[in-house]
Amino acid sequence: MARILTLLTDFGLADYYVGAVKGTLLRLASGTQLVDLSHEVPAGDVEAAADLLAGAAPTFPAGTVHLAVVDPGVGSARRLLAVQAGTHQFVAPDNGLLTPQLRAGSEAWSVTRTDLFLDRAAGHGGGATFHGRDRFAPIAAALLRGDHPNALGEAISDAVRLEVPEPRREKATGGAVLHGRVVRVDRYGNLVTDLPAAWLDDAAGAASWIAHVDGASRVSGPIALRRVRFYDELPPGEPGVLVGSLGTLELSLRGESLAERWGVARGAGVRIEPR
Amino acid sequence: MARILTLLTDFGLADYYVGAVKGTLLRLASGTQLVDLSHEVPAGDVEAAADLLAGAAPTFPAGTVHLAVVDPGVGSARRLLAVQAGTHQFVAPDNGLLTPQLRAGSEAWSVTRTDLFLDRAAGHGGGATFHGRDRFAPIAAALLRGDHPNALGEAISDAVRLEVPEPRREKATGGAVLHGRVVRVDRYGNLVTDLPAAWLDDAAGAASWIAHVDGASRVSGPIALRRVRFYDELPPGEPGVLVGSLGTLELSLRGESLAERWGVARGAGVRIEPR
Amino acid sequence: MARILTLLTDFGLADYYVGAVKGTLLRLASGTQLVDLSHEVPAGDVEAAADLLAGAAPTFPAGTVHLAVVDPGVGSARRLLAVQAGTHQFVAPDNGLLTPQLRAGSEAWSVTRTDLFLDRAAGHGGGATFHGRDRFAPIAAALLRGDHPNALGEAISDAVRLEVPEPRREKATGGAVLHGRVVRVDRYGNLVTDLPAAWLDDAAGAASWIAHVDGASRVSGPIALRRVRFYDELPPGEPGVLVGSLGTLELSLRGESLAERWGVARGAGVRIEPR
Repeated sequence: MARILTLLTDFGLADYYVGAVKGTLLRLASGTQLVDLSHEVPAGDVEAAADLLAGAAPTFPAGTVHLAVVDPGVGSARRLLAVQAGTHQFVAPDNGLLTPQLRAGSEAWSVTRTDLFLDRAAGHGGGATFHGRDRFAPIAAALLRGDHPNALGEAISDAVRLEVPEPRREKATGGAVLHGRVVRVDRYGNLVTDLPAAWLDDAAGAASWIAHVDGASRVSGPIALRRVRFYDELPPGEPGVLVGSLGTLELSLRGESLAERWGVARGAGVRIEPR
Repeated sequence: MARILTLLTDFGLADYYVGAVKGTLLRLASGTQLVDLSHEVPAGDVEAAADLLAGAAPTFPAGTVHLAVVDPGVGSARRLLAVQAGTHQFVAPDNGLLTPQLRAGSEAWSVTRTDLFLDRAAGHGGGATFHGRDRFAPIAAALLRGDHPNALGEAISDAVRLEVPEPRREKATGGAVLHGRVVRVDRYGNLVTDLPAAWLDDAAGAASWIAHVDGASRVSGPIALRRVRFYDELPPGEPGVLVGSLGTLELSLRGESLAERWGVARGAGVRIEPR
Repeated sequence: MARILTLLTDFGLADYYVGAVKGTLLRLASGTQLVDLSHEVPAGDVEAAADLLAGAAPTFPAGTVHLAVVDPGVGSARRLLAVQAGTHQFVAPDNGLLTPQLRAGSEAWSVTRTDLFLDRAAGHGGGATFHGRDRFAPIAAALLRGDHPNALGEAISDAVRLEVPEPRREKATGGAVLHGRVVRVDRYGNLVTDLPAAWLDDAAGAASWIAHVDGASRVSGPIALRRVRFYDELPPGEPGVLVGSLGTLELSLRGESLAERWGVARGAGVRIEPR
């Protein structure tokens, strides 16, 4: 069975960059099944890439290799990371992109096998700006060919992790007050938060909810939220809260972008409390 | 030979959604050849998805499975559809997305095998908002593994169909008057209509044509059209009518967007008549 | 081993066009491994497509077939080209798209095997506007099935080549003055030039550099450039010159779009000289 490699970058699709990474992978690990996750990560946005990869990777079969290149520090001394998490392997710059995998308990290696790097070869005309093609693709190809990460570098325990604020809850009369943030605005304009959905259920007694969203430029004061199970249950124009696809709370409007309606962007603080 | 699955969604490429559907498909039906049709269908635009799928699907080899998820009613009581049309199979929400296949004569099933649904499993943390990953991908995977649609649910004859206005023609002096609409504005700004190209040929005698386009904000009154076979035959700046790639009439400008020039969007009524 | 076909078009991802080309390829050459290079080439921009293909193609393994369709002259008398360059084969309209491959020394054929063309078949309802599906895909499929280009048409030596201005350098006190142009603005806003990186090294003695960029709407006069090896070496806000991924000079800002900062687009003339 062909091994699967998923590919996630911020390269966009107007340049030759994605093609060059794919070509290098297929040249060095023939027969690999390439799967595009996305190349539309905002330029240099390591947190968005980490979030996307963490959502998609667990759905893949055992043995999948994930290559993620969002690498504003390309060429600098930042390390090149290989991570084994369960039966999956991940390759990325050591800049926090693999924070969710590192947190979940996994082994990490700093790849030092410079003989793999194409930019060290005689006659390589390019500079030090495209490690996706010259270093990360060859590292991923080595894993796809069956090399153990141990053979690629030294085990490390200090891989870079993004410092992400943790959601929290405090007891209040009539339930609990939940403090979190918008970790993602999806294509439909839903506000995906980091608040575990179970927290809402635990807040016994409350039948209705109010949200405060920081930096919501087009709304002021608290907003009443209807609790629903899916978008179609919402009356038109009325915002709701539901359990999103990764088990966190999500604020939504039916058939319309709530992010646009309220003027909210990723990172905004969110407070949800009983009405 | 690996079986082919085409994938069409309105998920966009900035989220983890497409990756999660692909991972689930490959986990449940390993060895499948995944083919992206598009993930840029406008959010919730079932008609655009139906149109795109109807144009692309017939080109694929026998045995292809097509998975299309544009699903504003996700989580609600809307049914999950499997359709057999010739040697191809289609999976989509029952919201009209498969109207062209249903019209062409095909068998349809409402999928009721809830044991396939991942969101029914213990420990599934997510809510009811991502049936692409949790229900449609497993259904498509079952077909890819060789299950017959009969084994997935009950045959139905009342699958939802989009009500699409039919083009019509009326006799007139010097030929015929054709009434249709713009079913697609393509990337080049061509106005693709639903008018069968043969209708123009049948309108004997007319050497030149006039178009009236409803809601064309940047042009008023009828427009003379040059009849050509391909874009390059048009003099710069002069609009023309030609036979498009699906056998319907198309209005075009050479090297320029006619949609932009005239201020026309999808759905606009079009009338073409002899000059 | 499955043969690889790379696909490059200006079709965008909102239409059925890309899907129809893929389906036709898989129907006529089953088992092919399809690799998307990009479908976001600006509409009709042959030069951008040539540049992208030239950057990505050399990374692919021996035996790869590259299909590139940016074809404003579709339907006209322009020829259909098959090119053998080393172990790779290329299929494209004869409009200059394959200029880099033709320059590098290769054999070219004008494909005349009209029996391959789907739009010549009885019952083909479409017009002459979609040679990607109707002619180019069948030609590429014939190559993927092992046909030699000789069997597809006649060898030609006058394939169309883009006339691209050559970069040049002139001696000057303290080094050399380099005259080139911006051949690409990448997703990060880097200005990729056609100036060979070695020219900067050859200009002995100069420690610092000045750039003049034509048509830079937001900057006037010469600009001091810091020479660095990678983006992260640049102090914030200070423009630099470095060796790009294809061995030419690249002007960059760290973490910001230089193209936007200076108001520069592709094609702009660039002069770099010792300070």
